Amino acid sequence: MQIKTAEILCVGTELLLGDIVNTNAAYLARTLASLGISVYHQSVVGDNPARMRQAMETALGRADLVITSGGLGPTCDDLTKETAAACFGRQMYCDTDSLEQIEAFFARRGKEMTPNNRKQAMMPEGAAIFANDHGTAPGLALEEEGRGVMILLPGPPRELVPMVDRWVIPYLSARTDCVLRSRNLHLFGIGESALEALLRDRMEGSLNPTLAPYCADGEVRLRITARGRDEAEAYALCDAEESALRKTEIAPYIYGVDVGSIEAALVPLLVEHGLTVSTAESCTGGLIAKRITDVPGASAVFPGGVVSYANEVKADVLGVDRETLAAHGAVSAEVAAQMARGVRLATGASIGISTTGIAGPGGGTPQKPVGTVWLGLSDERGESTHLLQLDSHADRAYIRTCSASHALYHVLVRLREKYPECR
Amino acid sequence: MQIKTAEILCVGTELLLGDIVNTNAAYLARTLASLGISVYHQSVVGDNPARMRQAMETALGRADLVITSGGLGPTCDDLTKETAAACFGRQMYCDTDSLEQIEAFFARRGKEMTPNNRKQAMMPEGAAIFANDHGTAPGLALEEEGRGVMILLPGPPRELVPMVDRWVIPYLSARTDCVLRSRNLHLFGIGESALEALLRDRMEGSLNPTLAPYCADGEVRLRITARGRDEAEAYALCDAEESALRKTEIAPYIYGVDVGSIEAALVPLLVEHGLTVSTAESCTGGLIAKRITDVPGASAVFPGGVVSYANEVKADVLGVDRETLAAHGAVSAEVAAQMARGVRLATGASIGISTTGIAGPGGGTPQKPVGTVWLGLSDERGESTHLLQLDSHADRAYIRTCSASHALYHVLVRLREKYPECR
Repeated sequence: MQIKTAEILCVGTELLLGDIVNTNAAYLARTLASLGISVYHQSVVGDNPARMRQAMETALGRADLVITSGGLGPTCDDLTKETAAACFGRQMYCDTDSLEQIEAFFARRGKEMTPNNRKQAMMPEGAAIFANDHGTAPGLALEEEGRGVMILLPGPPRELVPMVDRWVIPYLSARTDCVLRSRNLHLFGIGESALEALLRDRMEGSLNPTLAPYCADGEVRLRITARGRDEAEAYALCDAEESALRKTEIAPYIYGVDVGSIEAALVPLLVEHGLTVSTAESCTGGLIAKRITDVPGASAVFPGGVVSYANEVKADVLGVDRETLAAHGAVSAEVAAQMARGVRLATGASIGISTTGIAGPGGGTPQKPVGTVWLGLSDERGESTHLLQLDSHADRAYIRTCSASHALYHVLVRLREKYPECR
Repeated sequence: MQIKTAEILCVGTELLLGDIVNTNAAYLARTLASLGISVYHQSVVGDNPARMRQAMETALGRADLVITSGGLGPTCDDLTKETAAACFGRQMYCDTDSLEQIEAFFARRGKEMTPNNRKQAMMPEGAAIFANDHGTAPGLALEEEGRGVMILLPGPPRELVPMVDRWVIPYLSARTDCVLRSRNLHLFGIGESALEALLRDRMEGSLNPTLAPYCADGEVRLRITARGRDEAEAYALCDAEESALRKTEIAPYIYGVDVGSIEAALVPLLVEHGLTVSTAESCTGGLIAKRITDVPGASAVFPGGVVSYANEVKADVLGVDRETLAAHGAVSAEVAAQMARGVRLATGASIGISTTGIAGPGGGTPQKPVGTVWLGLSDERGESTHLLQLDSHADRAYIRTCSASHALYHVLVRLREKYPECR
């Protein structure tokens, strides 16, 4: 059956209590919008059988498709499947494939499945089952001519998002005569409101492809989503939109396409040129090393780093001159330069990068307020330094993350200047 | 009139399209929960008069209070006030105080108010008006015995949040007779389904306080929420529930109360005993150092650490014996012990901790599959090591996060054994 309208129903008392923010609703809404499916209602209900049934019946009465999230767990509060089965007049049965997968999930952790997990293998008769690669609860779809379609998904976003990509989008594409393809342009150095001001007309005017900006921690990801009758048509629309965007004022800020992060763009570039990088971190506390090593294969380009939080460690382990520390303080261009050089020599890496600054909330002074961060970079040509002056009212986590991003971005820019043929 | 139940209705097509995440719903929900007002439904509708009216009528029919956000802007799509006025049978009039405030808002920016902004000063007869200190749209409350209460708030969170603090909380406090207070017990080493199996009867039986488990990254947070006539009564109920839980089988897994994380429990304990810790990380890549330094004040307990990704760095910087590396491999108890000792001596810290393992996706062998992680701990008494065998199908991020948590947890446990008077 053709699906034209949908409603999103998120289940969970933690949503009603405001313990968590409903990111699933936004994610599902964007997915449906990209498929050309209209959404007029979103609702949240708790783990209450009567209210959940009422909400499902109301939704089925006014939309072709109802997508739910949550309530697929192993506890007695988890009722979504049973309630959906009742809406469609289906009996529940134990799906042996799902049960085996749940048992295997526990076995790999060296644990035994508890009896209440069996419930997660119970399915309504006739359901299409969506395996969960990241948790124990499979998702499912129920369909009945004249009644509609219900899709049930697990609540945790790290389980729901891959399940939508793997199962839901193909399931719905078959019922909407179209495919979706996306492309992410990654930008650094431009803020969300500046981006929106530059692209507002483009974003408002465009129904296919759609443009959606996502901002986190000082970076912006611009997601192009195109709908076509087949993959080739959808990708052609993505190509055209990307080309058009690369002619606008945002072009200089684009550092990668579908790379995921600055570090994920950087590591392959280092591999390609046989270079290695090492890190000497003070205020970022290990975050840069952590981000580099997030990238599989980082061991080819990252021998190691030092977290030199105390001045003694800057001196003893990195060889920073004690008199320089006394004269200029730890948060200075001079110390940033010596830290970067010190870790490069200690590890034998091609490049050394450093951060030293004041992440807050304490530690700021009028001369060096919270948000003052020096970045250092050392290579065979010598040392360069750069001052970041971040918002002194920003929180500690933001200042650390932003400093780490700037440090990684500097290396990326430096390498691209050196090797202009690779972008 | 007394307010016991409420419903949240967020207005805005951008919410239906998933362009923005609905943080207002979570914020309002938390606020209502802490006032002891029960919320059973949350909904989102677009800028459509008929659907908005239907949603408001449905909500007023089943809750004492309906709080809306959005739709108070100056454009023709902004309909919330007019629709609410129709629900309550009220005429609209121009509130001159509000109009003056809007004119002043523009004057301060050196601009003139546009004609469509006048609409933001139109109010339903009899409304209590909430001035907006951060934007042009005042909020309002409408009340009618037998009908209920509606509160209308602006959509942008930076306007809604201060308006709730300044106007809504006092307005509602006068109309409720109880408060809610919560307490979080943090557990490590027990999974969600095992916890639920142990506590099922307790969780099902308890209406006040309620018990809710939340799981993330291998840790469980158990939230106790109690309702009382005043704060003292609510906290007394939390105390009683906590004491009772500490007599059950989950007690050994509780590592903290309202601390937020293992590292946030650890840092104050180190401060209290004048101890310092340093980190030697391989597979966790700097994550442990990053987590320790997430905690404000960590500089008192963390001189620094080393990320020794390559074996050369383990040998050169941490003093790990090259023959040991050759004989046992980097992922071994022997190397974990030497790494922990090496970083302790290099930094002068009281305690050194280390991780060396295989985070995946590559690098596993039949003898040492992905998920094999050795943890080391070194103090003045010598070195101890511990083998973690995590799920070889788990992803890299989970293995790194879980290893870091286990390493931090080991230090916590070790300190508590040493200083049993502090829990």
